[in-house]
Amino acid sequence: MDDRELLKVVMGIVGRENCMDDCAILPCGDQVMVATTDMLHRTTDFVDGMNDWQIGWMSAAVTLSDIASMGAAPKYLLIAVGLDRWEQLAGVMQGAQDCCKKYGAAIVGGDIDHHGELTVVTTGLGLVDKQFLVQRSGARPGDLVCITGIPGQAQAWLEGYRQYEKVLFEPQPRVAEGQMLARAGVTTMMDDSDGIALSLYDLLGVNECGFSLSSDKIPHPAGIPEPQAGELALYGGGDYELIFTLPKELHPIKGVPYTVIGEVIPDKTVLVDGVAPARRGYQHHWT
Amino acid sequence: MDDRELLKVVMGIVGRENCMDDCAILPCGDQVMVATTDMLHRTTDFVDGMNDWQIGWMSAAVTLSDIASMGAAPKYLLIAVGLDRWEQLAGVMQGAQDCCKKYGAAIVGGDIDHHGELTVVTTGLGLVDKQFLVQRSGARPGDLVCITGIPGQAQAWLEGYRQYEKVLFEPQPRVAEGQMLARAGVTTMMDDSDGIALSLYDLLGVNECGFSLSSDKIPHPAGIPEPQAGELALYGGGDYELIFTLPKELHPIKGVPYTVIGEVIPDKTVLVDGVAPARRGYQHHWT
Repeated sequence: MDDRELLKVVMGIVGRENCMDDCAILPCGDQVMVATTDMLHRTTDFVDGMNDWQIGWMSAAVTLSDIASMGAAPKYLLIAVGLDRWEQLAGVMQGAQDCCKKYGAAIVGGDIDHHGELTVVTTGLGLVDKQFLVQRSGARPGDLVCITGIPGQAQAWLEGYRQYEKVLFEPQPRVAEGQMLARAGVTTMMDDSDGIALSLYDLLGVNECGFSLSSDKIPHPAGIPEPQAGELALYGGGDYELIFTLPKELHPIKGVPYTVIGEVIPDKTVLVDGVAPARRGYQHHWT
Repeated sequence: MDDRELLKVVMGIVGRENCMDDCAILPCGDQVMVATTDMLHRTTDFVDGMNDWQIGWMSAAVTLSDIASMGAAPKYLLIAVGLDRWEQLAGVMQGAQDCCKKYGAAIVGGDIDHHGELTVVTTGLGLVDKQFLVQRSGARPGDLVCITGIPGQAQAWLEGYRQYEKVLFEPQPRVAEGQMLARAGVTTMMDDSDGIALSLYDLLGVNECGFSLSSDKIPHPAGIPEPQAGELALYGGGDYELIFTLPKELHPIKGVPYTVIGEVIPDKTVLVDGVAPARRGYQHHWT
């Protein structure tokens, strides 16, 4: 049993339409509010070596990334912290506060709990004008498949490449980029936190077309031998880059560095060099 | 170190103004959006004997109660579930969904995590017209201190009075009552989830006046000998009644059952029968 199978259980109860995007979409005056929640905790997410400040930073960053992927501006964060040692609270809160401040959001609420394991749940709220909202559905055959930054670096740290510590420990959500891409007219967008392959399968689930990538176009983390670097780029989790689809005539978008890695195809399938990649990446598993 | 001491640490980082009410207050078109988050988990909150459906129900209810205490209508819930056993997910989600449905809210987002201990974090969003928003500050000397329902029943279960199981396991947030009280003109409001005594000390912290109760006016849970029943009523946690202050000339408010238990006084102090009650109730403690 993995995350995506469990999501089907949830869909059966709360409705499929409430499980399709990185954020919920709520009316808010003339604008749209997007809302998202993320649970992180010691065992799964906060690796050894991270300090309290980085734990707080990461907890805020992952939620701001979901907001960015809708083309929205992050505005508010609520943060629930379950602590085994209360001494960690100040560092965690300062890290979350600094991350919010950098990206234009404010911490407006929270909860503190005595917990057996350090657990942080952040809920982010963002705003976007309705016409600039980007969802996971909307890709059209012929659109370019693109990604910001270099995927695979966070996972590379987990596999021993310590030069990528900052990427994993202090993720930088693509907040400004998300809004610029939305205004430029991208047709779908999400972050690649579970890896490119799983992200494309997620997009496949909500679009009536498919995605064909060329492995030689995907940027690889530097200083890592092949085929490991390519493997990391395609399947590595823990990055917070934006994957998006873009009508060809809108390429290139000025002011946002990104790489074209493939094309939207009429066939409802995911292909890398013409072959379906494994449906794997960052997932939780239950036995 | 307890919750309220840790809250001071948080205030130092995110600002006191973001820690004063049950909910954050956010502009949303012509209305005000209130937002709140609560973390519950097996060890502290889900007592033995609760089934998965009740765990989900309680997780939603505590958050809807915070929204009710602002006079707002609950609209949206996000729910993050950390699971040790995936088999619990459907029950938890169904309980949360049923609670939301009863009180007019919808589950619009969430997260699923593999966790060592069952942990549920709910974030609620509600809407209220600006003129009907009620906060913790606003009490004026001469106002009546009032409470809905009968306090102490949830704690009574924990002390062996099994007839109160439903009160503890399936709390019924005062959602309709909160909105009616707000429209009727109450000056402050909060829920009594940490007990009456602690709630009044919380109100004391944000008002320039005090609160004087008469113990013989406080309703006591039935079937429990004194002085235990009075002790439960004053200090017991786990209830979700509304405590509020009301200008005398507005009493009685029609359609909402409540009891007048005291009066707002000019002195900045909390008194029960003329004596300051202990500053205790439901709190987490760290060593």
